[in-house]
Amino acid sequence: MTEHIEGLIAAPFTPMGEDGGVNLAAVEPYADLLARNGVAGVFACGTTGESLLLTVAERMDIAKRWTDVAAEGFKVIIHVGHNSLAESKALAAHAAEIRAYGIGAMGPCFFKPQTIEDLVAFCAQVAAAAPALPFYYYHIPGMTGVEFPMADFLETATEAIPTLAGIKYTWEDLVDFGRCLNVGDGRFDLLYGRDETLLAGLAIGARGAVGSTFNFAAPLYRRLMEAFEAGDLDTARDLQRKSREMIHLLYRTAGSFLPAAKAVMKMVGLDCGPVRLPMRNLTPEEAKHVRAELQRLGFDEYCAK
Amino acid sequence: MTEHIEGLIAAPFTPMGEDGGVNLAAVEPYADLLARNGVAGVFACGTTGESLLLTVAERMDIAKRWTDVAAEGFKVIIHVGHNSLAESKALAAHAAEIRAYGIGAMGPCFFKPQTIEDLVAFCAQVAAAAPALPFYYYHIPGMTGVEFPMADFLETATEAIPTLAGIKYTWEDLVDFGRCLNVGDGRFDLLYGRDETLLAGLAIGARGAVGSTFNFAAPLYRRLMEAFEAGDLDTARDLQRKSREMIHLLYRTAGSFLPAAKAVMKMVGLDCGPVRLPMRNLTPEEAKHVRAELQRLGFDEYCAK
Amino acid sequence: MTEHIEGLIAAPFTPMGEDGGVNLAAVEPYADLLARNGVAGVFACGTTGESLLLTVAERMDIAKRWTDVAAEGFKVIIHVGHNSLAESKALAAHAAEIRAYGIGAMGPCFFKPQTIEDLVAFCAQVAAAAPALPFYYYHIPGMTGVEFPMADFLETATEAIPTLAGIKYTWEDLVDFGRCLNVGDGRFDLLYGRDETLLAGLAIGARGAVGSTFNFAAPLYRRLMEAFEAGDLDTARDLQRKSREMIHLLYRTAGSFLPAAKAVMKMVGLDCGPVRLPMRNLTPEEAKHVRAELQRLGFDEYCAK
Amino acid sequence: MTEHIEGLIAAPFTPMGEDGGVNLAAVEPYADLLARNGVAGVFACGTTGESLLLTVAERMDIAKRWTDVAAEGFKVIIHVGHNSLAESKALAAHAAEIRAYGIGAMGPCFFKPQTIEDLVAFCAQVAAAAPALPFYYYHIPGMTGVEFPMADFLETATEAIPTLAGIKYTWEDLVDFGRCLNVGDGRFDLLYGRDETLLAGLAIGARGAVGSTFNFAAPLYRRLMEAFEAGDLDTARDLQRKSREMIHLLYRTAGSFLPAAKAVMKMVGLDCGPVRLPMRNLTPEEAKHVRAELQRLGFDEYCAK
Repeated sequence: MTEHIEGLIAAPFTPMGEDGGVNLAAVEPYADLLARNGVAGVFACGTTGESLLLTVAERMDIAKRWTDVAAEGFKVIIHVGHNSLAESKALAAHAAEIRAYGIGAMGPCFFKPQTIEDLVAFCAQVAAAAPALPFYYYHIPGMTGVEFPMADFLETATEAIPTLAGIKYTWEDLVDFGRCLNVGDGRFDLLYGRDETLLAGLAIGARGAVGSTFNFAAPLYRRLMEAFEAGDLDTARDLQRKSREMIHLLYRTAGSFLPAAKAVMKMVGLDCGPVRLPMRNLTPEEAKHVRAELQRLGFDEYCAK
Repeated sequence: MTEHIEGLIAAPFTPMGEDGGVNLAAVEPYADLLARNGVAGVFACGTTGESLLLTVAERMDIAKRWTDVAAEGFKVIIHVGHNSLAESKALAAHAAEIRAYGIGAMGPCFFKPQTIEDLVAFCAQVAAAAPALPFYYYHIPGMTGVEFPMADFLETATEAIPTLAGIKYTWEDLVDFGRCLNVGDGRFDLLYGRDETLLAGLAIGARGAVGSTFNFAAPLYRRLMEAFEAGDLDTARDLQRKSREMIHLLYRTAGSFLPAAKAVMKMVGLDCGPVRLPMRNLTPEEAKHVRAELQRLGFDEYCAK
Repeated sequence: MTEHIEGLIAAPFTPMGEDGGVNLAAVEPYADLLARNGVAGVFACGTTGESLLLTVAERMDIAKRWTDVAAEGFKVIIHVGHNSLAESKALAAHAAEIRAYGIGAMGPCFFKPQTIEDLVAFCAQVAAAAPALPFYYYHIPGMTGVEFPMADFLETATEAIPTLAGIKYTWEDLVDFGRCLNVGDGRFDLLYGRDETLLAGLAIGARGAVGSTFNFAAPLYRRLMEAFEAGDLDTARDLQRKSREMIHLLYRTAGSFLPAAKAVMKMVGLDCGPVRLPMRNLTPEEAKHVRAELQRLGFDEYCAK
Repeated sequence: MTEHIEGLIAAPFTPMGEDGGVNLAAVEPYADLLARNGVAGVFACGTTGESLLLTVAERMDIAKRWTDVAAEGFKVIIHVGHNSLAESKALAAHAAEIRAYGIGAMGPCFFKPQTIEDLVAFCAQVAAAAPALPFYYYHIPGMTGVEFPMADFLETATEAIPTLAGIKYTWEDLVDFGRCLNVGDGRFDLLYGRDETLLAGLAIGARGAVGSTFNFAAPLYRRLMEAFEAGDLDTARDLQRKSREMIHLLYRTAGSFLPAAKAVMKMVGLDCGPVRLPMRNLTPEEAKHVRAELQRLGFDEYCAK
């Protein structure tokens, strides 16, 4: 059992140049920005990082860059999930080689596992390719369509995956989330993955979180966690309201969260460039609208550039 | 604007005789049992009450019986939702006649409204049939398939439904739930409808709740709310765990929650009889298993017979 | 085993007055119109007939009117499906009393049966309330969400429902449809319920069909069946294309098929009035658009007023 | 506009050795087997070929092997779909280099396109990487979750994808399929992708088909097409029944089609080895059951080893 992660882990965007290629040079200032804002680490090349839209070579380059620039104690978890088990194992082995803090993998979304056992068998091979690194299963059924009760997954996987550390839990099922917290007397690390309902996750028992809006609004969430810890529910609820309004705006601007969220990074001084197809980038008008609305919602207080 | 309901509203089972007919005689002791356990009212003939499986005449009989036996201050909300608007209006008018505290209606589940406007138009006519009673929209997409963001529903319905009091919110979307709390400066009453995640609802801002397990375990939830209010999160989480384990048991015993939940009522001394087709009742073995497992989970502490 | 129905059965609209009440007077000319266009019978008070939006009393009135006015040999099948088994049985008993040709029932859509056995148990009780009438199960998962393989349903129901005559099959699963044709050596009557792909159903082996566009375009489908029988695939495909274009127009005009389809009845001289909430009626502009487009598609050839 | 493909295109399995690696040596006898059974070509590395479970390098090796061994006139279409556009373009360019007959690509299934325009933009870049090869969009929403009306896709893509040849249509929507046949006066090639309802596709107007059971039962389908052409519907229906029973058996044996289907190849003398994770292979007992049942269904007549 590894230590439990507390606080905020960002799910970073993959910085890209205007030509659509990966912009590795942006990773170092990115890591600084996150550290400056109290973020404890990154879950790199996940959904927010455009993950499966990247080539395997690009994913390795980005992963290496994050481990290269990370300050001591800054946790770099590499998402190595892939529909092809062979590619996933290669990514895991590479993550071990570059001395990542841990690895994560989502369930394969093309041929979806038919049973929990099949999912565990898949994950066990990925995890075994980096036998010294903690393995986090990445539960995100909204993207993958792979939806099993995670409490049952943890029970089944405990033996089959000796490095199993926990779950990045990006789903609405707080019953299952609660059950996970109880498996094995709380031995697993349940990282809450819905920024817009973090307060609910904390109430149920979450201690750490992974999120995409921690990239540009980590201080808001740190204050929320502090207020919750201090028993100041009114403040915590008000901060959650602000987070909700911010995220709702990003979802509705162009019918899709990620292009809008990525565009926000320019507002905090770190241009992450465009998203890749099949997503479409915001129009200049949409981007302007997002910026103006965010300012109206008090965005400038959420993040120290 | 009506007062906000605080505390627990039970969603009662419809007591039936062994012949499958409605057992009206059981309603009076039922009301006593609930009051004795600190329940503030009922939301009668809803999903737990087998609602659409009853005839309109049966629904009126049950509604009348609840208003007849309810002690002063015990809130009797009648669910009048029906696929047929005409039947729904008749039920609403009847609820007014018997002086119910309020009415509720789910969205029609056969022809589903295509837009929020269509849903509001439907509800407005139901509400208008009981123009002196608060109207609660009953949001339960898992049963009806009617799924619109409720915050948008409230905005749209504010004018069209002058008696709109709030929502019985039985769904996982805590972002939308939070947004609803903010509509009209908090004027609407948001009754949380997922017993197994009540703690998350409270964190986000719920003050009242409607639930089916309040029928036999209200004291557990009252203690949970008290612990939460007092800032004792450890106790609250532990009680939520107990609730979760109880409900998980009921879901998994026979693949369906309601037959198992209804069978539990015998354990608290109030035989509510069988469920109706197309549900199937527990086998004697399944019922025995449920009872034994509940006892193992500490059920006897949850309810004062 | 009853005889197999061949040819076209219309799923009639429920005629309504401008006040929204049922217009019983329109039923007689409606039956004449259908007979004049070569339709063999009706499946009354089904989805097209706004079924669950009607009160039970209205459904009985309409059913009685159809049996009253039907010419000898014109088959009147009454849909008696209802979420409440008791109401469904009352409708079935009434259908027997008024000497309907047969009855049909869809699966209950609120509490959905969890297993085929539960669905069969429900249907068996409905069928038993009209023990002398052929029973047709009405398979329409797009509306009810009740989706079991119908071949398995037929196998399971053969003994439990002695009056089981077949299925009104309104779904895309032509594999299951084909399997149904083979159950019990072809003893069951499989009525194809997708007008827009009738040709595919005929190829697989359908002999009869129930449809809503047979209300105003039966001659088109009769010609299609004749062409298919005669081996003239080019003509059959061209007629299916015309049907497809007509139906596509009705679907897309206002985002919903039924209000547009019902409005078409005015074009063939039989005003069926508005649809009920939660559906919305076409605006005058939309209705005008539909009429103009239909004319452009050659609608006048499809139906003899 | 390219010629329309008539007859049968197999969607080949990817032969693997017992170590799970690709068995390139099996491709040559595989091509012979298919040709011997009257198959006109292959759609390689698609769903049946375990596509996204392979590495890009493996996909290129397999593609090259098929173009190397294909006899003159045997059409080798390479599926190049991938969640990463860059990888997809590399696969397309490689297919051009090895002189494939054409390329195909499914919609990206991780980030799903939000609009038809986004899907077209993605496909246009894939197609442009092999500007001399016909491009087939591979419509398989059951696997990808990408579901747009294909008739609208064809309209939108006509200009944006100059090499657009048609669609491999693996979905139940025969209305949309029919509409596609009419787009651009029939200029597009609609390859029907549901072996178990081929007869329905032919009735609507399909002339060519791509299927996984053509790997081991092509003669059955050739006879079906011939019977249909000759107007002998009884024979065609009976052959479709046989196909249906065979496929139904493969689906139900182990809850998943592909492992069972791949195992069948041993019965026709071409061992294709195991499937990859997250699928699981049949147990020896399941495999034995499949073989025995297939023999009972007359399998030996369907294929010339």
